[in-house]
Amino acid sequence: MPLGEKAGFEKSQSRYCGVETEFNDDFPQLLNFNLSTGSFDFVVAPLMNPTYRPSLLEKDGVLPFAASDLVLSPSQWSSHVVGKISSWIDLDSEDEALRMDSETTLKQEIAWANHLSVQACILPPPKGASCANYARCVNQILQGLNNMQLWLRIPLVKTDDDAMDASSTSFIDSWELWNSFRLLCEHHGQLSIALDILSSLPSVNSLGRWFGETVAAAIINTDSFLTNGRGYPCLSKRHQKLITGFFNHSIQIVISGKPAHSIPRPSSDLAANNFDNNGESPQRHSLRPYLDYVGFLFQRMDPLPEQERFELGYRDFLQSPLQYQRAISKALLDRVPDDKASATTVLMVVGAGRGPLVRASLQAAEETGRKLKIYAVEKNPNAVVTLHSLVKLEGWEDIVTIISCDMRFWDAPEEADILVSELLGSFGDNELSPECLDGAQRFLKQDGISIPSSYTSFIQPLTAAKLYNDVKSHKDLVHFETAYVVKMHNIARLTPSQPVFTFTHPDYSNKKSNQRYKRLQFEIPSDTGSAMVHGFAGYFDAELYKDVHLGIEPSMATPNMFSWFAIFFPLRTPVCVKPGSPLEVHFWRCCGSSKVWYEWCVASPNSSAIHNSNGRSYWVGL
Amino acid sequence: MPLGEKAGFEKSQSRYCGVETEFNDDFPQLLNFNLSTGSFDFVVAPLMNPTYRPSLLEKDGVLPFAASDLVLSPSQWSSHVVGKISSWIDLDSEDEALRMDSETTLKQEIAWANHLSVQACILPPPKGASCANYARCVNQILQGLNNMQLWLRIPLVKTDDDAMDASSTSFIDSWELWNSFRLLCEHHGQLSIALDILSSLPSVNSLGRWFGETVAAAIINTDSFLTNGRGYPCLSKRHQKLITGFFNHSIQIVISGKPAHSIPRPSSDLAANNFDNNGESPQRHSLRPYLDYVGFLFQRMDPLPEQERFELGYRDFLQSPLQYQRAISKALLDRVPDDKASATTVLMVVGAGRGPLVRASLQAAEETGRKLKIYAVEKNPNAVVTLHSLVKLEGWEDIVTIISCDMRFWDAPEEADILVSELLGSFGDNELSPECLDGAQRFLKQDGISIPSSYTSFIQPLTAAKLYNDVKSHKDLVHFETAYVVKMHNIARLTPSQPVFTFTHPDYSNKKSNQRYKRLQFEIPSDTGSAMVHGFAGYFDAELYKDVHLGIEPSMATPNMFSWFAIFFPLRTPVCVKPGSPLEVHFWRCCGSSKVWYEWCVASPNSSAIHNSNGRSYWVGL
Repeated sequence: MPLGEKAGFEKSQSRYCGVETEFNDDFPQLLNFNLSTGSFDFVVAPLMNPTYRPSLLEKDGVLPFAASDLVLSPSQWSSHVVGKISSWIDLDSEDEALRMDSETTLKQEIAWANHLSVQACILPPPKGASCANYARCVNQILQGLNNMQLWLRIPLVKTDDDAMDASSTSFIDSWELWNSFRLLCEHHGQLSIALDILSSLPSVNSLGRWFGETVAAAIINTDSFLTNGRGYPCLSKRHQKLITGFFNHSIQIVISGKPAHSIPRPSSDLAANNFDNNGESPQRHSLRPYLDYVGFLFQRMDPLPEQERFELGYRDFLQSPLQYQRAISKALLDRVPDDKASATTVLMVVGAGRGPLVRASLQAAEETGRKLKIYAVEKNPNAVVTLHSLVKLEGWEDIVTIISCDMRFWDAPEEADILVSELLGSFGDNELSPECLDGAQRFLKQDGISIPSSYTSFIQPLTAAKLYNDVKSHKDLVHFETAYVVKMHNIARLTPSQPVFTFTHPDYSNKKSNQRYKRLQFEIPSDTGSAMVHGFAGYFDAELYKDVHLGIEPSMATPNMFSWFAIFFPLRTPVCVKPGSPLEVHFWRCCGSSKVWYEWCVASPNSSAIHNSNGRSYWVGL
Repeated sequence: MPLGEKAGFEKSQSRYCGVETEFNDDFPQLLNFNLSTGSFDFVVAPLMNPTYRPSLLEKDGVLPFAASDLVLSPSQWSSHVVGKISSWIDLDSEDEALRMDSETTLKQEIAWANHLSVQACILPPPKGASCANYARCVNQILQGLNNMQLWLRIPLVKTDDDAMDASSTSFIDSWELWNSFRLLCEHHGQLSIALDILSSLPSVNSLGRWFGETVAAAIINTDSFLTNGRGYPCLSKRHQKLITGFFNHSIQIVISGKPAHSIPRPSSDLAANNFDNNGESPQRHSLRPYLDYVGFLFQRMDPLPEQERFELGYRDFLQSPLQYQRAISKALLDRVPDDKASATTVLMVVGAGRGPLVRASLQAAEETGRKLKIYAVEKNPNAVVTLHSLVKLEGWEDIVTIISCDMRFWDAPEEADILVSELLGSFGDNELSPECLDGAQRFLKQDGISIPSSYTSFIQPLTAAKLYNDVKSHKDLVHFETAYVVKMHNIARLTPSQPVFTFTHPDYSNKKSNQRYKRLQFEIPSDTGSAMVHGFAGYFDAELYKDVHLGIEPSMATPNMFSWFAIFFPLRTPVCVKPGSPLEVHFWRCCGSSKVWYEWCVASPNSSAIHNSNGRSYWVGL
């Protein structure tokens, strides 16, 4: 039974909670007890007797698997069982015989799990600091695996040594172990993480990294629970916050371990194997209180904000007229003193679309008691039809003149006092706003006002394993050198963002160029530990007029505004940044005779290739 | 005129010497003076007036190029002129106007050089520690360049600070500048190096790195020359050795600078521009003594050793019977005491080929006065024909029995005392020697002798930009996961080699497996500086019998033996190793039911992908 279907979560986003069990060759009983009695959604169960060693097996002996595939239906295997690979295996042992046995067993168990059609198997954590042989073997398996996922179990550990001391032998950061394992396996899409949550947690910055990784499950041992006033299990505030983060990122929870709380009910002395195997009917699953607590945390979560729920499908509708109305009002009041309120201000909306900025302008005029003459310039002939209907419907014929023309080539009959446009992309200047407004400023008076008056792009380094894998799955250069508009979710933002390019309008300077070049240095907080940079989030912030801003840069984003998602610039080869090493990034905006494009690269800690040279993969045509 | 055609050099390997000149718009005169009077082979000459700045040029002005393309023939331009890009350009300046002028000029000059059809242009060195914008611009140019080479000028500088101090600001290693430039340009094949040789040289280890890089030219300034007893220019011993290294690696020499030696001839007071421009006929080129000295160094070189000259084309002929004869003699003497010399020893040559080991065995028998009965087992039916003729020709019919069969499936009529084979590849076990000898040891007596008795493979990390580029040019994964047999030349061996896998024959142990796994740690000497590892050289050493060895591992290679070249294992992404950082490498020999293959990876300083998983790219069929 899912933890509950909450308002704001789609059905596919229900959260599930599993339980880790010991070896049991009676699978139907195991499943019945844990799912029916225990109300868990799935079991994480060993598929092979843990005493098995291939080198001890007699020739032609039958492998000691737990149950045959026939005892459960295929859908039961796939919905309710996650295979747990034998935890004794150690492929990086110094002992060659153990290494050989481990490799044989691992391959046998995965093949068996595949035969059972379970959806995932949990691989035991690497035993030491080195994991290359384990990774080599898993990588071989992954090459031939159909649909099954492999979840590498990783304890959530990071000793918070001083960052400069990272080379000392006592320093442990389990993220590094994961990072080397997945690099050896080339970011394989079917390899993800089962995080073992322990009673103490590393720093918030270091935890944040995991939300950019492909974490499939979080395993919470009963040892990690505290005890509340009534003797029941509960979690520390920091653990609660972490679990809430897992819910938000669709990470499954698994309860593990033996009951560690004496709950005031007779069920607390049930057998270690989680159910009473004396033949009496089990009364209550001894781990049920832990499940109940996790369910409570889930139910207690704030529903998703309205914006999150509705923003899908709104991309093409301008949601920002309110900010524009404010900006236009301020500009009108500045430009036309109260004693000259009867003077007519010429306002041109360039890129009028379906008319939202025309309406915002008229509302600003009404609000301020100023008079407008509006030219609505629009090059899309379909939008022009809509504009004509709107003007007729609203009775604006005397005020609004519709111009069906590309603003760069329009021969305006008079000069404008105010030029209003909304040509911004997620990265500000990525949809030719600079070039279009350069073309339009011809018909703005020398002392005229452009709304927006300026805009700035921002970038921020990300861990984004999922986005990276999506890009990589295309197996070509073009996709690695393209920027993507994305609603970012399973990402870790590694530092605050920094400004990249700024454009100001109007700009009458000599030798004006829309080419830009920026070199940026990011310092990842040292308590984060090492981190993988898969690419950069791009944002913008626009100054519409004076203090009226509009934008999506996270630290100053306009509230309830969902016209723009962020943009993602990937890196062809992700860059691992160690604590104390700055990340140096270069961004270029290049302009050719027929197109505009970005190039980007990392210059430190190591140089990457320059991405998108000459706009070979990604550009906007002029 | 080339520096001379030496015995042992092919014609295409003649070495040339150029001269760097100042700007001169009379190209025919420039060429005539430097080539005819000076005897240089080519000039490195500016193509544009150095006072030119695009921002100062009047609109529609003609660019101040040196000469038009018509003043020389196309073949003169391409054979005798290397373009020198204006040295004032600085694309990473803080001054945006200078940056813009630099980019415009660089693109104009390269376009002009292309129009002239010169073969190469020398780019001035990056001005500071940062070169990203310079690299971005050069990279854009490279994308559209036809055949012309670009040689980035790099001063040969490395301050020999203590390795641990590498992060201090005073530390300079110009290799790092080159490394970041070429990474930004993705190891582009048309980008190479012109090294500026200064009067002091860094450590030998650090110099060694450059021989693995694509160095096209070495520019020696007259300042770097010493003065000999007669007042003539000469070079220090270390410089001489370096120049000899350049000759060996087909690197062109360029003399640069003003004459710095007062040579006891009137020519020493010639004008700074290298020739007398007072209208008098020039008597002697003032840099001629430097050229003469370089020519002297070239002529003085040892001719190439005979082996080097003849080894091409010998790959398929066994060149090692002498070592085998020694090993067989020793084995015969050990096995058959003098008082039993009349006893007959059964010797089987498995993989007899055209018979060299049969002959070596018979010569060993003659040398030691022992009696042999030989079975020559060969599966190639064509070689069997040759064997039959050989036996008949030599009259060996009573001693040698020819068996046309795969040794793994032969049903031998008796057991052998000695089993002789030569199934080794460049990497020892890479041509199925272990599997074949496993199959053959059935018919070896329990106390019998296998020759070879064991063999070991070795690897060694390399800088090998040229090999890497060759592999990369195929643009697919398969070529990056294949090992290549190569006569290695333009490489830098970064550390001594280390042993990888050993096989011993016969091997009667239980549960014998030919799978192997080895983890290796290499320490690059800290005075090398940072270094790029493009892959690994592989070698083998075989113990034929007791102290008789055969092999190609460089530190103990059999002299005058050219049956095997080394093998090259590439890395998909080259790994940059900083001083003090160990390089950890893992190698696997994997065996499946139908094939044998290697997998390899780097685990430190950063994890690479595991190469050739499941033998997907490169394997030997069983």
